[in-house]
Formats: sequence, C-alpha cells, structure tokens
Amino acid sequence: MTTENYRLLFLDFLSEKTKESNKYTEPKNLYDPIHYILQIGGKRIRPILTLMSCDLFGANYKDALDAALAIEMFHNFTLIHDDIMDQASIRRGEETVHKKWNKNIGILSGDALMILSYQMLEPYNGKLYRTLQSLFNRTALQICEGQQYDIDFESRDDVSIEEYIKMISHKTAVLLACSLQMGALIANASEEDVRRIYDFGLNLGIAFQLQDDYLDTFGAVDFGKKLGGDILENKKTFLYLRTFELASRSDQIELLKMYSTTERSEEKIQRVTSLFNKYQITDFSLKEIEKYASKAYKNIDALRMSDHNKKKLLEFGQRLMYRKV
Amino acid sequence: MTTENYRLLFLDFLSEKTKESNKYTEPKNLYDPIHYILQIGGKRIRPILTLMSCDLFGANYKDALDAALAIEMFHNFTLIHDDIMDQASIRRGEETVHKKWNKNIGILSGDALMILSYQMLEPYNGKLYRTLQSLFNRTALQICEGQQYDIDFESRDDVSIEEYIKMISHKTAVLLACSLQMGALIANASEEDVRRIYDFGLNLGIAFQLQDDYLDTFGAVDFGKKLGGDILENKKTFLYLRTFELASRSDQIELLKMYSTTERSEEKIQRVTSLFNKYQITDFSLKEIEKYASKAYKNIDALRMSDHNKKKLLEFGQRLMYRKV
Repeated sequence: MTTENYRLLFLDFLSEKTKESNKYTEPKNLYDPIHYILQIGGKRIRPILTLMSCDLFGANYKDALDAALAIEMFHNFTLIHDDIMDQASIRRGEETVHKKWNKNIGILSGDALMILSYQMLEPYNGKLYRTLQSLFNRTALQICEGQQYDIDFESRDDVSIEEYIKMISHKTAVLLACSLQMGALIANASEEDVRRIYDFGLNLGIAFQLQDDYLDTFGAVDFGKKLGGDILENKKTFLYLRTFELASRSDQIELLKMYSTTERSEEKIQRVTSLFNKYQITDFSLKEIEKYASKAYKNIDALRMSDHNKKKLLEFGQRLMYRKV
Repeated sequence: MTTENYRLLFLDFLSEKTKESNKYTEPKNLYDPIHYILQIGGKRIRPILTLMSCDLFGANYKDALDAALAIEMFHNFTLIHDDIMDQASIRRGEETVHKKWNKNIGILSGDALMILSYQMLEPYNGKLYRTLQSLFNRTALQICEGQQYDIDFESRDDVSIEEYIKMISHKTAVLLACSLQMGALIANASEEDVRRIYDFGLNLGIAFQLQDDYLDTFGAVDFGKKLGGDILENKKTFLYLRTFELASRSDQIELLKMYSTTERSEEKIQRVTSLFNKYQITDFSLKEIEKYASKAYKNIDALRMSDHNKKKLLEFGQRLMYRKV
C-alpha cells in the first residue's frame, strides 16, 4: 500500500468513529473544538506510520487503526495547548481553537482530547494493552518535557547543541518513534525489531526537525509561507547555536543583540542569515541532518522483514526528508 | 484503622515516591509546580477513600497506595487547570501554580501531572490494570464534562436543578465514587459490591457538594472564610435555582437582576440571602442533602463486609456531612 492509501484508510476510520460516537457531543463547548481540530487536516504522518509499521511487519493494518487514532488525538491535544502557550492564532490555515472559542475552552477541550486518546487504546487486550499504555505514558511525558525545554530555551543564552537535540527529540521525535513502535507491537514483532523501528523513528524525527529548522530560513519560497520566522522569534535552532559556536567574538555579540530584540523586520532576517552564511551553516546543517537520517536508515537493514518492505520504510523516510519547503 | 491513619500512610507513600523519583526533576519548570501542588496539602479525601475501601473489603491497604496516588494526582491536575480558568490566585492558603509561576507553566505542568497520574497505575497487572485504567478514563472525561457544564451555566439563565445535579455529579462526585471503587476492585470485591460502593460514593459526593453550596451562604463563620462567595460570583447553585423556581415573578426578576451584576457588595449578599430565606431555602436544601446522603447510605447495607466495617463507612460519610463550615 502507498502512504496515500494509509492516509485515506485512516481518514475513513476517523470519520466513522466521529459519526458513531454520539456520546461525544455534549457539552458542545467541550466536544466541538475536538471535532474541529481533528478535521482541519494535517499530513497525518503519525497515524500513517502506525498503520504502515503494522502492515509491513505482516499484520493487518486494521488492527492498528485504534492506536493510530489515539496517537493522532494525542498529537492534536498538544497542538491545542501549544497554540495557547504560543498565542498562535492560525493552525493549518484555520483559526486555532482558543482563538475560535476562547482560552479556557482550549485548555479544557485539550484535556478531554488527551483523555480520549487514552480511551482509544481500550480495544487492545492483555499484555499488548499494557505495553501500549506504558509506551504512551512515557512518550506523553517526554513530549511535555520537550515543550518545557523549548519554552525554557527562549530565555536562556547558554543552550548547547546537545540540549537542543534532546529538546527536539522529546518534543517531536519520540511521538514519531512511538507511532512506528505501536504498529510493530500490534503486529507482534520481535523485541529487537520493536527497538529498531523505534530508533528509526527517533532519528528520522530528529533529522526531520533539523530540516524543518533549516528550511525555515533556507527553504524554497512556498505560496503563503515566509522565510525567517524562527529568526524573528529568536528561536535558538541548530542554525543559531552552531553559528554562535563558530562565530568570532564580535559576531557572537551581534547574534546575541539580534536575538534579544522583538524587532520583526526583513533587515533582521537578512542580517542574521548573512551571519549564518558567513560560517557556512548550510554545510553544517545538511551534514547534521544527514547524520541523523543515516542513523535512522541503519536500523532498517537488520529488521526481520522482506527487502520489499524495508524499501518501503526507506522510501518513506527519504520522501519525508527530500522536501524543499 | 482511622481516617487519620490512612491519611498519614498516604502522606508517607507520597513523600517516599517523591524522593525516589529522581527522574521527575528536570525540567524544573515542569516538575517543581507538580511537587508544589502535591505538597501544599488538602484533606486527601480521595486517597483516603481508596485505601479505606481496599482495607474494608479485606485486602491489604498497601496494594491500593499506587491507585490512591494516581487519583490524588489527577485531582491536583484538575485544580491547576481549574485555577487558571477561574483566575484564582489562592489555593489552600497558598499561591496557585499559575500565579506563582505563570499560565503556560500551569497548563503544561497540569498536562504532565495528568499523564503521571496515568503512569501511577502501571504497577497493577492483567485484568485489574485494564479495569482500573478504563474506569479512570471514563471518570476523567466526566470530570472535564462537569467542568465545562459549570462554565456554560455561568452564562445561561435556564439551568434546571436536574442539570445542576448532573454537573456537580460529574465535576465532583464521580471522582469520589471512582476512588472508592478502585479500592474495591483492588480488593477483588464482587461485581455487585463494586457497583454499590460506587453508588455510595456518587451520592455522598452529590450530598457533599450540595452541602458545600449551602454552607457557602449559611455556614458558621470560620476564621478567614467569608460567607456569600457563591452569591458574589453569581453561581447558580441549588439555593439559587430552587429559590428561583419558588419565587414570585417580581422576586424572580430581582434575582435575575442580582445575578447579572458583577457587584461584590455585602448588600448584594444580604439581599439575595433574604430572598433565599423568604422561600425557606434552608429547609429545601437540608432535605435535598439528606435525600442524597440516605441514598448513599442505603448502598452500605447490602455490602458483603462485616457490620463493623459497614459502620466505618457510614461513620466516614456522616463525619463528612456533619461539618458546619
């Protein structure tokens, strides 16, 4: 099956679940925001990973639908709360929940969505239920930790690259790893394979986020999307941290000055970008992305599945990494 | 064992868990608020109920400590988020989390505390784990629904008493019921007893909340506590809703007028209280409280446990209900 197949199968399941669950309608101010955020889209990468992993390990993808939905719900819960914390008003081209309703409704419907995500795992039985649940707990907590590190880093000027990698690993990569691992667990894959598929997802997730940071400054200009958002928000991404390490004392001082203003000008973007370029940050970034991507791919080789299936995993990773925007 | 015994045993367990869990320290801005709220106290009614229930059904109370902690953690998560929504700055005589830190930290540490509460159930095994988890999911979702109804009722003037009872049942009573039921499940009580102890807790919880509302206007004046807070906040409690039902057209209009201002004066409290008195609301309230309390107690009779133990449950209920402040 193609990625697009999995995506459509997931969307069918989502809409079926939404229709049947008449019990999740009242109070409307609690459940409407939940249906809203689940339906405004997104690439559905996480549920696709769960279905694909289960399928490639030789089980029926259908067995992974509930877990895929649990993960997508959890992801959307984090979006609702993160958007409140970041005071973001647009998400996927639509109003964010707290903007469309209000902050209190955002907090509470986020809470309810997190609980619903746990509830989605209830169809699993016995030891599998326990294993999924415990993986989910651990992952969920790491995501909160990652988000807190991200917030903390805003007001710190001694963040190391190691800390940064830990932050994106927690905030972004563990959920991709968890998505894949859940599929493998449901397919009853071997302990080794369960570990390997996790490491594949974890490293791919780190590479993905590093690339996201890179494209935010150096990507192709997509319609609607503007470059340099991270610079305007003084985000201490790999680009900034590595440049800072390499920079001369006077360039460091300039970087610090740039990242201590709330100025949102084209000039700031250009000045910082030229400092990035001065220290060949593109080379360093692409090398770092490549490092984590190959770490990810290495885990595929040893998996107990057909070469055909391994290739599918590799292709998925490569497609994820070869975007330009 | 006395209630005080259970409380101390729970506090020992809490402090032991807090000390051993070195892993729950970083990031500090995530975990400090969690340790803070868990330690500023409270009556610990919910964990006491879990330990007592397990003990009275003939099992070792120690087996219920993890569940008791899970419930206390969940309860404290709701306090952190509710305090943000209510813009409350004081909780148990201390600063609320979002006041001591900030709102974003309140949202995120609340999220993490909810996840931790789920994690606390992990020591349970097999079918019991599953049953506890599924009860926890259902209860948690109802609590969110109750909180949303509570918020919705603020801006509605057609709330019925039935809706009000449903709201306090969800917001407050189900967690007391869940606390007792978890103890019974851990003690492997019969299905019937598991249901009865839940109904005991549910009805006792409703009686408790109705009494809380009553005492907010008609309680003895405790040090520090002022009467009439609910009136100042235009809370549509049983007192208000029942008086409104009974009132003449002109008194209804006055009530509506009173409850549509944000005025916070002694005069408003006195005026509303005298309307409550005009319609003998004290009698109606005490009758309603009594109705739910006896509904609760009826569930005790049929339980399969010694009369000695039944008496302990009854006494706990009565002690909870006989407070005057």
